[in-house]
Amino acid sequence: MKKPILPKGTRDFNSSELYKRNYIIDVIKDTFSKFGFNPIETPSFERAETLLGKYGSEGERLIFKILKSGNFLKDADTTDFNNKNLTNLSRKIIDKALRYDLTVPFARYVVQNQNDISIPFKRYQIQNVWRADRPQKGRFREFLQCDADVIGSNSLMQEIDFICLFEKVFADLNLSGCRIKINNRKLLVAICEIYNCQDKFLSLINQLDKMDKVDRIDIRKNLLNDNFETSVIDSIFNIIDLSVDFNKNKDALSEIFSSSKIGSEGLSEIEFIFSYFSENKLTNSKLDFDIGLARGIDYYTGVIFEVLPPENILIGSIAGGGRYDNLTEIFGLKNMSGIGISFGLDRIYLVLQEMDLLPNYLDTSTQAIFLNFSKDFSFDLINFSNLLRSNNINCEFFPDPISVKRQLNYANKNNIPYVIFYGDEEKESGSLKIKDMKTGIQQILTPEKLIKKLKNSSENEI
Amino acid sequence: MKKPILPKGTRDFNSSELYKRNYIIDVIKDTFSKFGFNPIETPSFERAETLLGKYGSEGERLIFKILKSGNFLKDADTTDFNNKNLTNLSRKIIDKALRYDLTVPFARYVVQNQNDISIPFKRYQIQNVWRADRPQKGRFREFLQCDADVIGSNSLMQEIDFICLFEKVFADLNLSGCRIKINNRKLLVAICEIYNCQDKFLSLINQLDKMDKVDRIDIRKNLLNDNFETSVIDSIFNIIDLSVDFNKNKDALSEIFSSSKIGSEGLSEIEFIFSYFSENKLTNSKLDFDIGLARGIDYYTGVIFEVLPPENILIGSIAGGGRYDNLTEIFGLKNMSGIGISFGLDRIYLVLQEMDLLPNYLDTSTQAIFLNFSKDFSFDLINFSNLLRSNNINCEFFPDPISVKRQLNYANKNNIPYVIFYGDEEKESGSLKIKDMKTGIQQILTPEKLIKKLKNSSENEI
Repeated sequence: MKKPILPKGTRDFNSSELYKRNYIIDVIKDTFSKFGFNPIETPSFERAETLLGKYGSEGERLIFKILKSGNFLKDADTTDFNNKNLTNLSRKIIDKALRYDLTVPFARYVVQNQNDISIPFKRYQIQNVWRADRPQKGRFREFLQCDADVIGSNSLMQEIDFICLFEKVFADLNLSGCRIKINNRKLLVAICEIYNCQDKFLSLINQLDKMDKVDRIDIRKNLLNDNFETSVIDSIFNIIDLSVDFNKNKDALSEIFSSSKIGSEGLSEIEFIFSYFSENKLTNSKLDFDIGLARGIDYYTGVIFEVLPPENILIGSIAGGGRYDNLTEIFGLKNMSGIGISFGLDRIYLVLQEMDLLPNYLDTSTQAIFLNFSKDFSFDLINFSNLLRSNNINCEFFPDPISVKRQLNYANKNNIPYVIFYGDEEKESGSLKIKDMKTGIQQILTPEKLIKKLKNSSENEI
Repeated sequence: MKKPILPKGTRDFNSSELYKRNYIIDVIKDTFSKFGFNPIETPSFERAETLLGKYGSEGERLIFKILKSGNFLKDADTTDFNNKNLTNLSRKIIDKALRYDLTVPFARYVVQNQNDISIPFKRYQIQNVWRADRPQKGRFREFLQCDADVIGSNSLMQEIDFICLFEKVFADLNLSGCRIKINNRKLLVAICEIYNCQDKFLSLINQLDKMDKVDRIDIRKNLLNDNFETSVIDSIFNIIDLSVDFNKNKDALSEIFSSSKIGSEGLSEIEFIFSYFSENKLTNSKLDFDIGLARGIDYYTGVIFEVLPPENILIGSIAGGGRYDNLTEIFGLKNMSGIGISFGLDRIYLVLQEMDLLPNYLDTSTQAIFLNFSKDFSFDLINFSNLLRSNNINCEFFPDPISVKRQLNYANKNNIPYVIFYGDEEKESGSLKIKDMKTGIQQILTPEKLIKKLKNSSENEI
């Protein structure tokens, strides 16, 4: 029989990986709670009509679609089959699809529950999403997104609050030197307005998105190809360079954007945010204005964020987000400005791993194991285990009286810090022998002292 | 535009529901850890060949299948399409399927990672599974299973340990009076051997499975229909009745099963388990032997469990499990006896809800909200919020200076226990006014005292 394998782009997680992943998730979750967010969860799949048509043709291709249950051919068209009209046919034989992100299901949730939620509605959502993308380093077909959103208020206090939230998450992960980049979509709209290329907005966004990876000379070539004039390209690059030092170049930027209403608005929003952070400086991360930041997601309309790891780490963005004014409109609910951010767990994991910042004591939660010397001690081992457990000590017994060497081997391989010996001598004396697997030190202790020792050691480790 | 709706049998969870669900999950997870289990996770979908052919034709029908990405028709057969040969065609156009349970993926995991795990391998897995079942009370198409398994040892100490684990989970949930029913599949095999109806084993299992819901007269009719003789049916019912009081009827049962090797073996296993629990009585749940317990899952080969809620609660089993000797054999790895149990979160939730045992203080984790009286205070509110957060207090500010009434309304609707007033007076004095939303009592406190008060109140609530 062939050894079983996993679907492309998916992973099993063992305990050691999960304890480390959960450490990161817990930091994010705790911070969301600190900032007044409460959790919601939505189903893994949605009705096809909820997801399809929301992510552009590229996104649509990446959505996993679920075959109808029962007679999946009942609405299928023979012509579609014969002509290999995949789009038409697939819409007839599938009726559900796996979540592609958490944002569209969130919008669906808000609209569907609009009478039960109170505005502004703050929620976090930590769940898997699925994309049929080509797998590569840090990119999988099933991955966890950690999102927080506030919907129903356009107060800029929230933009500031989310930057504080980024600061706290990365500080709590002991990850310093991250670069929180911000921009405002309004400024990009204004640039197209000022230089009379409104029709080329998406092309500009598209090129700016590549600025991190592609040389400026090539971006210039691409923009020329897209019929941007040389002088306009120079002006755009000039604006981007000015934005790097906002406090110094505030006036120059004000003048550039003064002819555009939306541009002035966008700039004054940035100014409001910077005025807070010039008084209350970030100590762990850096806050950088960058008019070159575009974030190619359609629904952003205001301030946008992107967090990059410290400069020497060559991994893409580890968090992002922005304000969107019309997200719930796709489901018929207008005028709900929202702002949201998302942490990418896999990327953060890679960064922490590369910087050796993942706590490595988290391999097992088991504190001790009772070795098994004879079937005669079965009930005693169970009873001692239960005694320890009722004292909040995680422990197990070895289930079979095999060779001590193999039992110690098991304890070692599983990184269990203490083994406990219980044989004839111990049964008679009522005391137990405990061995510290790291130091090799052995002690003979009464059950009470054993419990005290294990409790202390577990507290020291946490 | 039509209001969006959810796929059949799926649910959104709001914060209040999630905090209660997580309370149950945390008890189960903590207990798994206490008993020395560590977590693993597997992908939500598996390759089609991993899942198909493992659950019988009924189960196969209920598996959600995922359409191939890209040209899903590339291997499809026109004849299959024209003849509506659904099984053939679906195997050509799909290549993945959503997890139907956690057991088959676990077996796949063990076989695939056999060189990295140490035997006995103890794991827990708390993840969603999906079944295209007809939805009804407590039955959904996406639901959470909480499984723990040990594989690689046939020691009966584990059967006892799992019963202790059931006892601890339900005690920690303050749910007393649950009935842990146990039986041994070996005894059912022996019955068919003794009464010479080995060919009718599955039919017997099938009928016994209905004993909880169907009258004995009807079971008798069904068994007669399946060609069981009247005298055999009488004997089987007699054995089942004897099993109800194991300690009293031990000798009678021993005699009945004495002619069957597998029967004697099965009975002595039960005797071993009862001998432990007659010395170490359960105090929270009841342990009942019931030879009528069958659990219609194919892979069980030894002791089986089923936990029912207290007698007055009309909800089916809330947990179950059993020993299986050949599970990993489906992926080519022989001789790995295992035993596992599973908790059904939705059913446990319903039972606790019906008995009013769900903690109801868990509606929000936000402790306090700063009311917003003017844009002039924006930065102060953000700073005070961050001060509280750095003292481990979950809080938020209202983002817009709308009417106090509407802001208080928001606090009320979200069950936030404290609101904090910060206006001109407070800004001048440096003290803040805090209002307890339950008692209505207001106090004016320095920031230090405010923090102390909120810290104390959050500790009292937990």
